[in-house]
Amino acid sequence: MINEQYKKMLEGKSVIRKLSEAATARGKEIGYENVFDYSLGNPSVPVPEKFTEVMIELLKTKNSMELHGYSPSLGIASVKDKIARSLNKRFGMNYTGNHIFPTTGAAGALAHAIRCVTKPGDEVLTFAPYFPEYNFYVNMTGAKLKVVPADTRNFQINFKHFEEMLDEKTAAVLINTPNNPSGAVYNRETLQKLAELLLRKQEEFGHDIFLISDEPYREIIFEGVDAPYVSEFYDNTLSCYSYSKSLSLPGERIGYVAVNPKCRDAQLISAICGQISRGIGHNCPSSIIQLAVSQVLDETSNMSVYEVNRNLLYQELTSLGFTCIKPGGTFYIFPRALEENAEIFCQKALKYDLILVPSDSFGVPGYFRMAYCIDTEKVERSLYALRKFVKENY
Amino acid sequence: MINEQYKKMLEGKSVIRKLSEAATARGKEIGYENVFDYSLGNPSVPVPEKFTEVMIELLKTKNSMELHGYSPSLGIASVKDKIARSLNKRFGMNYTGNHIFPTTGAAGALAHAIRCVTKPGDEVLTFAPYFPEYNFYVNMTGAKLKVVPADTRNFQINFKHFEEMLDEKTAAVLINTPNNPSGAVYNRETLQKLAELLLRKQEEFGHDIFLISDEPYREIIFEGVDAPYVSEFYDNTLSCYSYSKSLSLPGERIGYVAVNPKCRDAQLISAICGQISRGIGHNCPSSIIQLAVSQVLDETSNMSVYEVNRNLLYQELTSLGFTCIKPGGTFYIFPRALEENAEIFCQKALKYDLILVPSDSFGVPGYFRMAYCIDTEKVERSLYALRKFVKENY
Repeated sequence: MINEQYKKMLEGKSVIRKLSEAATARGKEIGYENVFDYSLGNPSVPVPEKFTEVMIELLKTKNSMELHGYSPSLGIASVKDKIARSLNKRFGMNYTGNHIFPTTGAAGALAHAIRCVTKPGDEVLTFAPYFPEYNFYVNMTGAKLKVVPADTRNFQINFKHFEEMLDEKTAAVLINTPNNPSGAVYNRETLQKLAELLLRKQEEFGHDIFLISDEPYREIIFEGVDAPYVSEFYDNTLSCYSYSKSLSLPGERIGYVAVNPKCRDAQLISAICGQISRGIGHNCPSSIIQLAVSQVLDETSNMSVYEVNRNLLYQELTSLGFTCIKPGGTFYIFPRALEENAEIFCQKALKYDLILVPSDSFGVPGYFRMAYCIDTEKVERSLYALRKFVKENY
Repeated sequence: MINEQYKKMLEGKSVIRKLSEAATARGKEIGYENVFDYSLGNPSVPVPEKFTEVMIELLKTKNSMELHGYSPSLGIASVKDKIARSLNKRFGMNYTGNHIFPTTGAAGALAHAIRCVTKPGDEVLTFAPYFPEYNFYVNMTGAKLKVVPADTRNFQINFKHFEEMLDEKTAAVLINTPNNPSGAVYNRETLQKLAELLLRKQEEFGHDIFLISDEPYREIIFEGVDAPYVSEFYDNTLSCYSYSKSLSLPGERIGYVAVNPKCRDAQLISAICGQISRGIGHNCPSSIIQLAVSQVLDETSNMSVYEVNRNLLYQELTSLGFTCIKPGGTFYIFPRALEENAEIFCQKALKYDLILVPSDSFGVPGYFRMAYCIDTEKVERSLYALRKFVKENY
């Protein structure tokens, strides 16, 4: 019998997906180069050449049965060791390979981390604005996602609301810094206060509260911005990472859960993730991709274009009168719309071939997101459309 | 709070895993070449050269952002089309790309198929002997796996028991042909009777009963054996496939669900699978692996060694007095043990450096499995140990 719950989900198409389809359709009419498509967060810079070289080298030199053979169910040991060493060097942590659980991207990492530290009925708190897929990642496990309202002054954490919402049912807190959609990066003060509050509440409730840190944009940080490593601040932290953005290979589905060595049951968590895998059909990321990525851990794609685009857009938007936090990282910017209803605002923008995403699904009304992982040349051309749109409507 | 259910699962180590570890440990003492390790079902023949060539060609010629970019959430359209055409040509089906949902191997395929056609509380019937991971694949969704006792005469289906166990709660039936662990291949008569019974019961209960067909060994069929395509017999069939065995690349996690075009909601099932993915962190198999495999769909590794090994073992085992069904495919053989307790039997074999897997976890007591995906030379050497073991103990 077809599962009706999943079938019903087909009716609710994501706003982003709808807009992206509209952009593609419009592209067929006027040429996609003339559609200023700011809807999708797809990396737009090439994969590092070294990654390609390493892949070819592996294919040419390694025994094919070893290269493409089963990965151990907790990931390839040499890969895990290398990831641990690289994180230790960069962030002063003390990971061993046993604290690293390779996954099919950040989505795979979150699927394991959430199941590992919650059970059905538990609550997971996150902060607006937030990636709308979190609803599915959390609620489809049987736990419940609750969203703390945004601090719209700076998109750091609204601690007053947060503390009010933390209660005995809170099993985990899910953060995303640098943040999709706001581009905000949590500063030291925020992470320090977050850790203090969670420690106090763990004590008060008499149980662990895990911090799940979703970090796919960790490597996209702009000049002068301090981006502290979350796990340094709070022992019960599971860091969920993806190489999708830093190496521009979202299709290869490669990332990991990094378990803070000081967290509860730190030595067991990878193995627990391995058990979770059995129920969700996750059997490690591709072997060749694990091996190739482990040889380019300290590389990134050349992501300077994102900063150039951020600067162009931030300057134009603020000079047009938009209220806007200057993004510290990612390839998103999240200005306040020029009218209350962001959906109507974005509908109007469509007439200028500007594809903007209204903020409602991110848990904050009245804003819009622009994903500026597109060519700078196109960003430049879009500024004229943006000016025209604002002038003629507001 | 650490999920106690998953943590507890750590205590129950699989018998196969324990034996494989014992084999590795013994290998360190006497050289692994002297351990007759029949425990693990890892392919032991090289990947087709064309696969490697295609991978290198893709890496050298294709734009890296396209090659490694996000796969659409339902899989790469050109890949799906090619798989559909290949299946149509081979099995006379009428698949279109829309009926193919690429997955991370058969485990990924089953994770989607089971969730698609059951809901928590439903029952899924399977037939002993069966792959023990089915317990986790099914029960961790909230549905319940029930095992129909084996027909030990030939390891086809025990229809009497099956019909008794089919009831209103049965949402799906899960079969595996060619079968792990028995090597049996369901013949036309079995599949015909299965289809007739399911049709009758659908009518009687007034709801669909889906047939989930797990087919990772479909390409490993021995000379003279008729291996009919399951989906031809019954409309409500979801075929779950993996290239792990046919192309010898289990580590690359690539397979699919193929939805019978005549099944209920056939046009929607891929999309429903896409919704299921959101909850379990599955975001398509690796892009490059999807693209590479789609260019070698009609290739297989040279699997003739499995038939040579089957012949050697079958002949030796039967001449030593074992009761044994001659495998029609796979790289497993499943003889009756020479004493009632298969675990004790396999323990005794260990002293002869023979690593055999007792059948209890496969749902049939008193048998043992040998995975003969090892070098023929080693199989030959093992025969002496086998003879010695039998002579000295039985």
